[in-house]
Amino acid sequence: MSKIAIINPNMSAGFTNKIREQARKIAFPHNEILALNPRFGPDSIEGYYDEAFASVGLLSVIREIDPTGIDGYVVACFDDTGVDAARCLTAAPVMGLCEGALRFAQALAGRYAIVTPMAVSVRPLEHLVRKYGADRDCVVRAAGVRTLDFEGVQAARAYEALLLAAQKSLREDDAEAIVLGCAGMTDIADRLKADLGVPVIDGVQAAIKMVEGMASLKLATSKHSTYGYPPAKPYHGLFAGFEPVTG
Amino acid sequence: MSKIAIINPNMSAGFTNKIREQARKIAFPHNEILALNPRFGPDSIEGYYDEAFASVGLLSVIREIDPTGIDGYVVACFDDTGVDAARCLTAAPVMGLCEGALRFAQALAGRYAIVTPMAVSVRPLEHLVRKYGADRDCVVRAAGVRTLDFEGVQAARAYEALLLAAQKSLREDDAEAIVLGCAGMTDIADRLKADLGVPVIDGVQAAIKMVEGMASLKLATSKHSTYGYPPAKPYHGLFAGFEPVTG
Amino acid sequence: MSKIAIINPNMSAGFTNKIREQARKIAFPHNEILALNPRFGPDSIEGYYDEAFASVGLLSVIREIDPTGIDGYVVACFDDTGVDAARCLTAAPVMGLCEGALRFAQALAGRYAIVTPMAVSVRPLEHLVRKYGADRDCVVRAAGVRTLDFEGVQAARAYEALLLAAQKSLREDDAEAIVLGCAGMTDIADRLKADLGVPVIDGVQAAIKMVEGMASLKLATSKHSTYGYPPAKPYHGLFAGFEPVTG
Amino acid sequence: MSKIAIINPNMSAGFTNKIREQARKIAFPHNEILALNPRFGPDSIEGYYDEAFASVGLLSVIREIDPTGIDGYVVACFDDTGVDAARCLTAAPVMGLCEGALRFAQALAGRYAIVTPMAVSVRPLEHLVRKYGADRDCVVRAAGVRTLDFEGVQAARAYEALLLAAQKSLREDDAEAIVLGCAGMTDIADRLKADLGVPVIDGVQAAIKMVEGMASLKLATSKHSTYGYPPAKPYHGLFAGFEPVTG
Amino acid sequence: MSKIAIINPNMSAGFTNKIREQARKIAFPHNEILALNPRFGPDSIEGYYDEAFASVGLLSVIREIDPTGIDGYVVACFDDTGVDAARCLTAAPVMGLCEGALRFAQALAGRYAIVTPMAVSVRPLEHLVRKYGADRDCVVRAAGVRTLDFEGVQAARAYEALLLAAQKSLREDDAEAIVLGCAGMTDIADRLKADLGVPVIDGVQAAIKMVEGMASLKLATSKHSTYGYPPAKPYHGLFAGFEPVTG
Amino acid sequence: MSKIAIINPNMSAGFTNKIREQARKIAFPHNEILALNPRFGPDSIEGYYDEAFASVGLLSVIREIDPTGIDGYVVACFDDTGVDAARCLTAAPVMGLCEGALRFAQALAGRYAIVTPMAVSVRPLEHLVRKYGADRDCVVRAAGVRTLDFEGVQAARAYEALLLAAQKSLREDDAEAIVLGCAGMTDIADRLKADLGVPVIDGVQAAIKMVEGMASLKLATSKHSTYGYPPAKPYHGLFAGFEPVTG
Repeated sequence: MSKIAIINPNMSAGFTNKIREQARKIAFPHNEILALNPRFGPDSIEGYYDEAFASVGLLSVIREIDPTGIDGYVVACFDDTGVDAARCLTAAPVMGLCEGALRFAQALAGRYAIVTPMAVSVRPLEHLVRKYGADRDCVVRAAGVRTLDFEGVQAARAYEALLLAAQKSLREDDAEAIVLGCAGMTDIADRLKADLGVPVIDGVQAAIKMVEGMASLKLATSKHSTYGYPPAKPYHGLFAGFEPVTG
Repeated sequence: MSKIAIINPNMSAGFTNKIREQARKIAFPHNEILALNPRFGPDSIEGYYDEAFASVGLLSVIREIDPTGIDGYVVACFDDTGVDAARCLTAAPVMGLCEGALRFAQALAGRYAIVTPMAVSVRPLEHLVRKYGADRDCVVRAAGVRTLDFEGVQAARAYEALLLAAQKSLREDDAEAIVLGCAGMTDIADRLKADLGVPVIDGVQAAIKMVEGMASLKLATSKHSTYGYPPAKPYHGLFAGFEPVTG
Repeated sequence: MSKIAIINPNMSAGFTNKIREQARKIAFPHNEILALNPRFGPDSIEGYYDEAFASVGLLSVIREIDPTGIDGYVVACFDDTGVDAARCLTAAPVMGLCEGALRFAQALAGRYAIVTPMAVSVRPLEHLVRKYGADRDCVVRAAGVRTLDFEGVQAARAYEALLLAAQKSLREDDAEAIVLGCAGMTDIADRLKADLGVPVIDGVQAAIKMVEGMASLKLATSKHSTYGYPPAKPYHGLFAGFEPVTG
Repeated sequence: MSKIAIINPNMSAGFTNKIREQARKIAFPHNEILALNPRFGPDSIEGYYDEAFASVGLLSVIREIDPTGIDGYVVACFDDTGVDAARCLTAAPVMGLCEGALRFAQALAGRYAIVTPMAVSVRPLEHLVRKYGADRDCVVRAAGVRTLDFEGVQAARAYEALLLAAQKSLREDDAEAIVLGCAGMTDIADRLKADLGVPVIDGVQAAIKMVEGMASLKLATSKHSTYGYPPAKPYHGLFAGFEPVTG
Repeated sequence: MSKIAIINPNMSAGFTNKIREQARKIAFPHNEILALNPRFGPDSIEGYYDEAFASVGLLSVIREIDPTGIDGYVVACFDDTGVDAARCLTAAPVMGLCEGALRFAQALAGRYAIVTPMAVSVRPLEHLVRKYGADRDCVVRAAGVRTLDFEGVQAARAYEALLLAAQKSLREDDAEAIVLGCAGMTDIADRLKADLGVPVIDGVQAAIKMVEGMASLKLATSKHSTYGYPPAKPYHGLFAGFEPVTG
Repeated sequence: MSKIAIINPNMSAGFTNKIREQARKIAFPHNEILALNPRFGPDSIEGYYDEAFASVGLLSVIREIDPTGIDGYVVACFDDTGVDAARCLTAAPVMGLCEGALRFAQALAGRYAIVTPMAVSVRPLEHLVRKYGADRDCVVRAAGVRTLDFEGVQAARAYEALLLAAQKSLREDDAEAIVLGCAGMTDIADRLKADLGVPVIDGVQAAIKMVEGMASLKLATSKHSTYGYPPAKPYHGLFAGFEPVTG
């Protein structure tokens, strides 16, 4: 039995609820799932500026709950916001949605496409894909909608745009599977798979499975070099209270 | 509940037993584990020649058991022998040990080393690592022992050689975690981790967790393009009876 | 004078005959050309599954004829099926069609396109191109026909589709030369070159020239590490009789 | 005449003073140099955790001074902390020390080494070097000292360790020039160059020259896609007050 | 105060004048600018053949003026003709237009396009972009005009073609900035920037700023290994008089 | 029957004679071999400066003899001096020693080392290896001797140094074959192979075989784009008389 924390680095409680629901539905029954978000920061993450603030929010949550015995973390953002810093802060395995989704996609298809809501995310995601060594097999496409369009009255139109972008990528990029490029799409994976007839990989689900796997094997993040604990030192002003204590 | 088949592509029953034991020990309790090997082929896999024959053996096992409802396959060889062909033959997810181990290592360390028994395996594994997009973070080192030395009277000496090679890699390659480069080492992961003080990733365990995860999410291999079912056609002579039927 | 064996890894005798004819036509007159195919296996090679079986057939032919003093081998399949294993089995140079064609194309053009019959081959060929370090200069395109369409009544239509695909690649990919992506096209290189006005490289011809060159210089495959002889060990069942004897 | 802000993302005033002094010494005389640090955050940056907090500090400074008409920014940290987010926040050019130093090194030497104080920085810097496309020509080595050792009583010993590490890299890595891998070394570039006899590139100086150049040409960061202004949205709690206003 | 020589490697005096004018307009006022071209060679550089001859012309100019105390060189050709050889000949920093422009573009945009006059230059420039490590972020497009069309009566039409090619690249390649792929376009950067609404980077201006920066810091080309002085030896016939004397 | 010209781009007649002798010894008997050198230029090629002048010499020879019906060219320099320009000037295939040697080495070994005389050549050769897509499998090592040491009284000592460097690379780099990194070593390939026990690939021999192969197949350099004929234009002064006439 493992205790898995899935942390939405933004402040949207609706979003956190959706992720919690999905996570509990697909987690192995013997595992306990916590879904949390920071107490401060932006309502959504769209680009590097929001990411910088959301990273601190993410770390604040981990600082708080890590001593309670968490066996693994999922960072519920497709930009993998703050994942490197989180890996320094805790010895429990940490997985972002993009990395998790790519690892499954690489095993299921020879070429695949990430379909993300906004065009502005394409280049940052391409950088992430390259960091994970998947750039030769993965393309990134945008549906031309806002992330929040997948909620409420816009949802039908947003889904339609996503479906069209995915179909175009299957046709023109020879994609063989689709990766959902946003945590907020976690509840449409099944529908999209039915409509497309190819595997659809959702990062929320993939990252949870990766972390459940690592946690059950008692695998830990290496504390040598890259992800070593942050060395102790004072933090000041707004960030007094966040100073590293473990290193 | 998923039914996972772990197939040792060589004929060594002792090896198959060891893998079955490990797999059952670490699999999620709700999953059923089959461990099998072909009825023909080599006793071990050392290099491309053995691989060619073992691939056919692997496929013969999958042909036989796939209709019984397997939810996922692990190919229990660190060379990932026949994995691409297996992905064509079945829609269930298929994972080799090298790919599985690398996916966990990439999340747990910034740099890691595969330690494999024989020097002759270093170059083929480097090619595999590059295929999986991990060549910038992963080095491959040899312990200078035979695979079978890990069984029987040589086991103590073989372990010692492995330990030395791993320590050297931590020191000289700045490796932060060790990946066991052979299925036959699956039972020494814990001991090596204790001796080294860094994460030790065993491909048998990692690949099973990856496949358990994909199977529980009902993820399937894409049948478009790269891993499409083999087109139907006659096979002759020795291989009559192995002709594709599904494509 | 060298003795060159060109081995078609599939069972199609018509195909073997066509290759023999081409090979004898273009080989240096002082060289002896053998063209052979295995006595078992698939009628054609379309994807990884067929390749696994054809590799064993290829190796069976080499086992048989290597002791008769072969100076070099061509594997007459554009997927380079079994080439790595063949390099382990014999010390004579071994060349596949894709590798041979790329080596000439790299010297003759700054960018070039492989045009292959079926779309399903595109991704596997892209992987091969990457393995050979040519992925930055080479694109892979499909003509949308079956391999066997180049024989018999479909031949005119197949040629037309190939021509269109090649013209499109010259125009849209800025390809400067065309590589024929299938052994079965070996007899249309001249016609296509005349129709396109750019160099057309046929793997059968290129690979023979590479092997004639290496053979005349008495160059051998290195037996250190990667392509070392397979270590001796028993093979069982269907594969009893194929055990390595040299290593 | 340009107004260049050089921002030390950590809280060390001594460090900021040293950088200011160097910057004013080497800046073109017609340019105005501001040297600043945030009012909150860590005293130094050692690893991803410190970086996450320092990024927010950096952004806070830019928010404050950007409306006063800054023509270009240097982020005075060799980890290029927060540079991507800063490029979103302002249209003025932004340069980190690592990127700046590499651009000069690439023009002055065929191979070069970054020498950084602590071993723990090697892997993160290697990732950065790769991001900047310089990984084939650049190695990263550690001197085995703390960043702060370059101040005060340890300074002589720290310099000696750096010198030895640089000499070793010239000898063993065939490095042809040395890049100082820490902002705190900015005042020893001349001495090291004299002791080594090869070019020594200091990121503080290089980044200032790059930014002075871009600023004098009125070059701006593209606001299309990757570095577009952050879209307006509410920020909460600790970060209320940091919400984007321009997008 | 630095003395910067900008050398047009071809014989077009009109071209040299245009570059001199631009260089003097944008150089820092304390710097002295020389603009020169060889006394022999081709009138323009279009492809590898012209480059071979223009390289010798370039070197002849440097041989003549280097002893007069030049602090830095710009090679005013976007093919970076002869830059490597020039770096051997002098210790002063040497920068080509392509390298200079890319270094600024990399800091100002996540993806950018070089727009060059003739289609025939696309592949050679792609090779150059790859050499500089920028191939993952940079595309090369042709406007379909001759270099000299930017002078005289064709100028309006040439500008129109360039504008269309740049707009197409912004739209279809997701380019975020435009790099002018020819020295002869140096005077249209401002107009194009106004018409496009994205940063336009001119290699003449960028390379001068890079060299002014390196020169003001007294940075020199490393004389170890790659760019070491040419070893002394006799040259004969047409090239008697060009023998290296310094090495 | 083909007419193959092998051009030594430097002025050393002794060198040209040695290459002629080797080329005639190993060429297919039906082929005619011309060995030539320019009438002007340096006595040897050591670095980029010599290369620039030798390239022009090489082109001058091709201009003169191409109209006499040459079927293929070998540029007898391991730096592949002027090969790209030569490919523009003629439609006959052109091959340099480095490219030729690498193509054979890639087929004969999984990893191989170029052993070159001087340390100063290591970086330029590494760049060439990368251009040819072989950098992942090839290392470059220096023997620490001068090129001309392989002639006359120093020959025994030079051979010894080369042997030691090669043995070190087999041992420490896991090289499986050796590539001779200088045209002047062409006569020691057999001796070194006997002393090392691994394949030794000589660029002179390999390039001739590649060109003989392409020439016998009537393969030509593509005249589209990259290697198109140089456009006609006037050349002035020293280079009047070298203007392109074909384009």
